[in-house]
Amino acid sequence: MTSPDRSGLIATITQFIFQNKGNIVNLDQHTDKHNGLFFMRVEWEIEHFAITRSEVRTTFKDFLLSKEIEGTWKITFSDEKLRMAILVSKEDHCLWDILLRHKSGELDCDIPLVISNHTELKDTVESFGILFSHVPINMENKKEGEQVELALLRKHNIDFIVLARYMQILSPEFIRHYPYKIINIHHSFLPAFKGSNPYRQAYERGVKVIGATAHFVNEDLDQGPIIAQNVSHVSSKDDVASLKIKGRDTERIVLANAIKQYTQGRIFVQGERTLIL
Amino acid sequence: MTSPDRSGLIATITQFIFQNKGNIVNLDQHTDKHNGLFFMRVEWEIEHFAITRSEVRTTFKDFLLSKEIEGTWKITFSDEKLRMAILVSKEDHCLWDILLRHKSGELDCDIPLVISNHTELKDTVESFGILFSHVPINMENKKEGEQVELALLRKHNIDFIVLARYMQILSPEFIRHYPYKIINIHHSFLPAFKGSNPYRQAYERGVKVIGATAHFVNEDLDQGPIIAQNVSHVSSKDDVASLKIKGRDTERIVLANAIKQYTQGRIFVQGERTLIL
Amino acid sequence: MTSPDRSGLIATITQFIFQNKGNIVNLDQHTDKHNGLFFMRVEWEIEHFAITRSEVRTTFKDFLLSKEIEGTWKITFSDEKLRMAILVSKEDHCLWDILLRHKSGELDCDIPLVISNHTELKDTVESFGILFSHVPINMENKKEGEQVELALLRKHNIDFIVLARYMQILSPEFIRHYPYKIINIHHSFLPAFKGSNPYRQAYERGVKVIGATAHFVNEDLDQGPIIAQNVSHVSSKDDVASLKIKGRDTERIVLANAIKQYTQGRIFVQGERTLIL
Amino acid sequence: MTSPDRSGLIATITQFIFQNKGNIVNLDQHTDKHNGLFFMRVEWEIEHFAITRSEVRTTFKDFLLSKEIEGTWKITFSDEKLRMAILVSKEDHCLWDILLRHKSGELDCDIPLVISNHTELKDTVESFGILFSHVPINMENKKEGEQVELALLRKHNIDFIVLARYMQILSPEFIRHYPYKIINIHHSFLPAFKGSNPYRQAYERGVKVIGATAHFVNEDLDQGPIIAQNVSHVSSKDDVASLKIKGRDTERIVLANAIKQYTQGRIFVQGERTLIL
Repeated sequence: MTSPDRSGLIATITQFIFQNKGNIVNLDQHTDKHNGLFFMRVEWEIEHFAITRSEVRTTFKDFLLSKEIEGTWKITFSDEKLRMAILVSKEDHCLWDILLRHKSGELDCDIPLVISNHTELKDTVESFGILFSHVPINMENKKEGEQVELALLRKHNIDFIVLARYMQILSPEFIRHYPYKIINIHHSFLPAFKGSNPYRQAYERGVKVIGATAHFVNEDLDQGPIIAQNVSHVSSKDDVASLKIKGRDTERIVLANAIKQYTQGRIFVQGERTLIL
Repeated sequence: MTSPDRSGLIATITQFIFQNKGNIVNLDQHTDKHNGLFFMRVEWEIEHFAITRSEVRTTFKDFLLSKEIEGTWKITFSDEKLRMAILVSKEDHCLWDILLRHKSGELDCDIPLVISNHTELKDTVESFGILFSHVPINMENKKEGEQVELALLRKHNIDFIVLARYMQILSPEFIRHYPYKIINIHHSFLPAFKGSNPYRQAYERGVKVIGATAHFVNEDLDQGPIIAQNVSHVSSKDDVASLKIKGRDTERIVLANAIKQYTQGRIFVQGERTLIL
Repeated sequence: MTSPDRSGLIATITQFIFQNKGNIVNLDQHTDKHNGLFFMRVEWEIEHFAITRSEVRTTFKDFLLSKEIEGTWKITFSDEKLRMAILVSKEDHCLWDILLRHKSGELDCDIPLVISNHTELKDTVESFGILFSHVPINMENKKEGEQVELALLRKHNIDFIVLARYMQILSPEFIRHYPYKIINIHHSFLPAFKGSNPYRQAYERGVKVIGATAHFVNEDLDQGPIIAQNVSHVSSKDDVASLKIKGRDTERIVLANAIKQYTQGRIFVQGERTLIL
Repeated sequence: MTSPDRSGLIATITQFIFQNKGNIVNLDQHTDKHNGLFFMRVEWEIEHFAITRSEVRTTFKDFLLSKEIEGTWKITFSDEKLRMAILVSKEDHCLWDILLRHKSGELDCDIPLVISNHTELKDTVESFGILFSHVPINMENKKEGEQVELALLRKHNIDFIVLARYMQILSPEFIRHYPYKIINIHHSFLPAFKGSNPYRQAYERGVKVIGATAHFVNEDLDQGPIIAQNVSHVSSKDDVASLKIKGRDTERIVLANAIKQYTQGRIFVQGERTLIL
């Protein structure tokens, strides 16, 4: 939850959980003094919890009202997995990485759907028993194509979307359907090297580290709130081709990291920043 | 505080703070399920706190008794700085680093005393306005020398000791006076390369990373609980001399990190491990 | 090549290449002054080279004799790919990683054969069009089992072997057939945590970094010359299970790195160390 | 040396050294195929060298002419130390770091002069036996101030200049006197966060890594060729003040690294990039 900072927030909320026989197993909080904001993430066991699943949100809402606590909050159940869709083009290293981590049990979500504007990765996706939908979107048919995509996402009850090196720019309309629910991997340490061909830009600028950034997609290209970043050192002997290969490992790790933070409910968006609890 | 895990610990303790008008600004906790242990660190503002400094420990003790909560705990005040002594021999890079960080305000402690078994660093220490005591300890006079050191430490009300590349092994008797209050920097990623000349050992084993470890000193050489570690990559062209130079930065950063964790009360010792909250 | 250090080695050998119209594109060398040894790796283009492939080794040998240069050396052609076999048990993350990197063109070798003492990874291997051989080796039948493996390796003209989390200890006899041609990935920063279950050992020792080590296999368990190492930082809240997951990325990257060094002929073994040029 | 790429460059030059009885101890080269350029750095011992110091440059020039090799080159003697001046304002962490590394023998140069537009660091500089010159330069008197600085630099035969967190922008006229001989440390991973207050910019953008960049100063602010870069991970809980403290270690290490590369003659400027050999 996020709320204006005031005394007693932790005590009041943990008391609510305790009195209803919930057992807290994890709690992290942060106070942003500059903006007077309080952030908290609490994880509790509900084995003996006095409130049923269907009632917990109403009950908690009433409780906050009774205590005159304002703020935004979300309650999720760890056994109700989020449903993730992947959008992909031809580059396959991030796709493979997500599918293999998911198969190994490392990612705590369901993946019912992969959409691509190309057909190259159909077999790969289907070999994991996942539905592959080809939506041949391009500059001309973007509006119609995105309608098809949105219908697919709705049909499969998708909670959030991962752009695993997807080479199309989403329209503002599309993005508005999934506010802070679309995660992109950009192959540079943003804000450096926005836009296309960041490894070429990195080469030409002669940087000594290259990076990757996972961020939420908003209407400004490569400028949404950053979720995760990492870098790797490169040699000044590297050319663009070797930078691309060296960068892939960082891309994979950063994107997987962002997906984990998302599925565990650790990301709090605050303006142009994210807080990870 | 550390206590056997049970329901409601966070709620109960944050309630105590809240009801006495303390404002929690930081809380971190961890449950070790395997050992059934609960760890928590809470930081609260006492501007409007209802309990005086002199009474807070007794009041909290009674409160825990009334709630039948067992465990060990410690209450400190951030404006009552811990008093640190440094023990040093001839190597000066860690000493300089600590003194400069302290001068810049980065380390939240007082440094009233530096003890050395050599005299080379006297001027350096005194240029920071800190008392330098020469205790020429060696294998023959260790017992008497340590008595002199202990008297100095007592006289200056030292809370904890940092061995900044101190080339003498402390006796078990000495260590017993400062249990988990002596921090050593060892120039390897322990448990690899215990004992003397770890850079030579690293060179001979041909490792591709070298490291440094800050740990509490206990009776087993280089085997106390680890507080902080870091490594740096080296080239297979490096020799022992260049490893030593490359390693210094890691030593400095790891030791400073450990001192910060200690002065902020973040280190919980649990058997042979530490938990950092 | 490796030879006793003396003046003019670089000049003499580069002159040989130049006079025969080879164009040097890469040269790296190192002098180990302590042991009086000289190491050099030279890469040259043979488009206009005056010596044929079949004669180059004899001609170079004669040339060295004529110059009275002693030493060991090897000449390979970058378009004659080394043939790699993978030995694997049930853990699949390193296997997948190698197969996908190979498919993407990142690894410059052929992979004609995977051998396993289990059958779980048969389908994975075969989906890449690679032969999977099940050799159900165990403590009782090790001698016979290794004979079967050696026959397979010979039959497929294997140049070097990668143990991608292979859970069997190779016999000294087996190793002698592939001296410094068997690469193992060990999931700790050796020499710390040799032997089984290194993540458990790391947890119990409370280290703040975990690592992985790729090394040549020799007769001493986990003590062969180290090729590549890396580490990642962990939290003191991690348990053995989360260390295992966090460690996988490092294992993958370190092993891939070692394979690249090997196929590019960059590894020079010198006693218990390797030099990477 | 840097020259248009052609066959036999390494052979020809190493032959020159060998025939004159120089013993090569280090050689590194790189071919930029895209631009058809060849770069090489050779280090040789001159104990038995047949050419005197005073004649070596002319002899080598004639040799290249005789072989019709074009290119730019530089010959330096490792026992003739470069003379470095430091420009500094009030921030002292980089200054201390350089002075202490120099004192320990880690930096292979002389430091005859420190210039500052403030007086705060006078005592620090003088405690190392180095001349401190106060030149109270500002926006109004920049032209005159820089003339004073240039006279000081000339008087002390300064070879290169380090801006150790110097808070004045140098004029193009000043820079032209020391082309690719002025090294600045900028506290961000350039090209991200050019200009003032990069830690505030980093905080506001919400990046998860912060960095530092050492680069040559040219007429475009923070856009000169990058020499060295590094980053450190930060927490989303960090504020601007804690980013500043965390960033200092990276600034120190990156600047020291760049100075070492410079004094060892490892930096080759190629347009907007540097090659480090």
